[in-house]
Amino acid sequence: MSQSFDIAVIGATGTVGEALVQLLEERDFPVSTLHLLASGDSAGQSVPFRGKNLRVRALDGFDFSQVRLAFFAGSPAVTREYASRASEAGCSFIDLSGALSLDDAIRVVPEVNADVLAGLKAPYRLTSPCAPVVALATALAPLHPLLDLRQVCAMACLSVSTLGREGVNELARQTAELLNARPLEPRFFDRQAAFNLLAQVGEVDSEGHALLEKRMVSELKQMFRISALDVSATCVQAPVFFGDSLSVMLRSEKVIDLQAICAALDDAQGIERVESPDYPTVVGDAVGQDVVYVGRLRCGLGNPHELNLWIASDNVRKGAALNAVQLGELLIKDYLSKILT
Amino acid sequence: MSQSFDIAVIGATGTVGEALVQLLEERDFPVSTLHLLASGDSAGQSVPFRGKNLRVRALDGFDFSQVRLAFFAGSPAVTREYASRASEAGCSFIDLSGALSLDDAIRVVPEVNADVLAGLKAPYRLTSPCAPVVALATALAPLHPLLDLRQVCAMACLSVSTLGREGVNELARQTAELLNARPLEPRFFDRQAAFNLLAQVGEVDSEGHALLEKRMVSELKQMFRISALDVSATCVQAPVFFGDSLSVMLRSEKVIDLQAICAALDDAQGIERVESPDYPTVVGDAVGQDVVYVGRLRCGLGNPHELNLWIASDNVRKGAALNAVQLGELLIKDYLSKILT
Ligand SMILES: NC(=O)c1ccc[n+]([C@@H]2O[C@H](COP(=O)([O-])OP(=O)(O)OC[C@H]3O[C@@H](n4cnc5c(N)ncnc54)[C@H](OP(=O)(O)O)[C@@H]3O)[C@@H](O)[C@H]2O)c1
Ligand SMILES: NC(=O)c1ccc[n+]([C@@H]2O[C@H](COP(=O)([O-])OP(=O)(O)OC[C@H]3O[C@@H](n4cnc5c(N)ncnc54)[C@H](OP(=O)(O)O)[C@@H]3O)[C@@H](O)[C@H]2O)c1
Repeated sequence: MSQSFDIAVIGATGTVGEALVQLLEERDFPVSTLHLLASGDSAGQSVPFRGKNLRVRALDGFDFSQVRLAFFAGSPAVTREYASRASEAGCSFIDLSGALSLDDAIRVVPEVNADVLAGLKAPYRLTSPCAPVVALATALAPLHPLLDLRQVCAMACLSVSTLGREGVNELARQTAELLNARPLEPRFFDRQAAFNLLAQVGEVDSEGHALLEKRMVSELKQMFRISALDVSATCVQAPVFFGDSLSVMLRSEKVIDLQAICAALDDAQGIERVESPDYPTVVGDAVGQDVVYVGRLRCGLGNPHELNLWIASDNVRKGAALNAVQLGELLIKDYLSKILT
Repeated sequence: MSQSFDIAVIGATGTVGEALVQLLEERDFPVSTLHLLASGDSAGQSVPFRGKNLRVRALDGFDFSQVRLAFFAGSPAVTREYASRASEAGCSFIDLSGALSLDDAIRVVPEVNADVLAGLKAPYRLTSPCAPVVALATALAPLHPLLDLRQVCAMACLSVSTLGREGVNELARQTAELLNARPLEPRFFDRQAAFNLLAQVGEVDSEGHALLEKRMVSELKQMFRISALDVSATCVQAPVFFGDSLSVMLRSEKVIDLQAICAALDDAQGIERVESPDYPTVVGDAVGQDVVYVGRLRCGLGNPHELNLWIASDNVRKGAALNAVQLGELLIKDYLSKILT
């Protein structure tokens, strides 16, 4: 990777955007010029990168033909408005907002389906799946060949950072008000989120499904290329700042070989297995880490075809920014660099 | 109910015991003398009941032949040591600790299987099931006749009060330390429980199952009298003071008729249904209430045989003390009063 590229980060002042910029530096991503973009409100702010302070500019009016690769870490509306401008200017992109359909911007997690990149053409249009799917797919990838997977039932307890800066600020504010016995005034959430569990994350459709739940089902099916995969997904809002926790129940046609399952997880990239009776948690283990933690591996009670597990993963880093940066690395190494040479 | 009875509450100084005493008063339970018992450490403390302060006495040495009915709300070890003494003295009891086997002290929730009492003989030996099972069974009871139930997958996020006073104190202490940026020193939990989710509640066995998870499976099977009922259960520790939240996925042989399901829940005793897009939570709805809240009713994504729902219930009141008091009321009305007349 001796070449370097001009890159844009959209949403550079946000929770995911900040983690993206930090990872581009940490991982020595082959950047020549880094364009940091956000809403007009943030224009003029600066963000540290490789020892310099880079200015944030307004996305509006940005000329995508200046860059080879863009990370979309703004809202879904931002992606909907600007993604096609990027493509038309010949700029490949990795979207993190999930605004685009499966067909329009394929979901990829390097540990799961990096091979699909070979069938695509520049400018690339990729989506980093939603954070609970990055975690779940990473854990399932090494298990999938060992299981004749019949059913996946996942309950994801998501942290408030799933909803960005405002979610984090609101949990901190609500908790402080309650501990100081001040009257609680919910603002960002419509009710008390501190010391409580909210039954849904974001709005639900007329059938009662939340967008993230629909994404979990459709993105898993696409990545594992099993359109009939039987998936049930529920997302719940937990009073946790950072990190997704998933409780997962799998059913296999074959009897579960727990020892083989553990060995496969131990051999896999991007996974740290924690042995019972210990177990991983988001605060103690996953947050700030580049791997997905897996624990509480056990069969069903009286059902040897059932495998239960617990996953703890950093939603902002592993579930979003790191996955996107790894996709960017793959694109550059195997594809974009070849186009240029 | 013109008769009244001498009653004992074991564990009267605990979280559940206090709620029990309060409910005996609130519901005008036919008590003549109320004996409040706890460990020797609490002997001499007083607890208000019907405008008087009752003295707490040491359980050790208590003569069970003085009472017709005892509530065991101490630890499992206390039940194991004293339950047979109660029976031998002709005292019926309702255990809340879950220490006794299914055969030894049948699980009963009045809304679900009150009819089993008719087949029993005094002195009665009953168990109020663990709190997540009281909640889940109450919600399932009216649905069961409408579903040809094939599978139940429940993930219960339990509050720290599940572990009694010490759990509650520790969450308060940890939260205050973190908000004041003081170093965290876990004591009761072995790690940070505040702003975190712990993957298991209590210890796990060599196969990785927690006791509460095993109770959920076996108690549900007993109460619904389906020994082959396909149940998967996971219990997680949430940073919530009071109230159990359950995410439940059901599979039925029949196609789900959501309208009929909603109507059945609306007609059922002990249940409050919340219509989407609103949903119930423990803090805003369930805590302090006598009903189980049910919401987020929805079919599977592309699977009309799947029903998903969310349950919020007060673990201490509805899940423990109230259920036990209601069992006591049933016993007295239909059985104990007849023995005496
Ligand atoms: N947080 C997670 O766990 C997570 C995980 C995976 C994916 N995602 C997705 O990643 C995206 C960013 O999430 P986040 O958590 O980082 O949110 P956030 O903290 O609220 O940050 C939002 C970012 O979007 C920018 N933005 C908003 N409106 C804009 C506009 N009109 N033009 C240009 N930029 C605009 C904001 O810029 P200003 O500072 O100027 O407002 C900010 O930089 C979302 O689509 C989210 O769904 C989030
Ligand atoms: N909390 C829940 O959500 C819940 C729900 C359903 C069932 N349960 C079960 O109900 C029982 C009580 O739970 P809790 O939450 O109320 O616990 P808790 O707050 O810790 O109270 C424990 C009670 O047991 C008493 N006790 C302890 N050792 C004793 C001994 N050797 N002899 C007599 N009394 C003794 C304590 O008396 P001292 O004050 O003297 O120590 C106290 O009154 C447990 O078995 C628990 O599993 C709890």
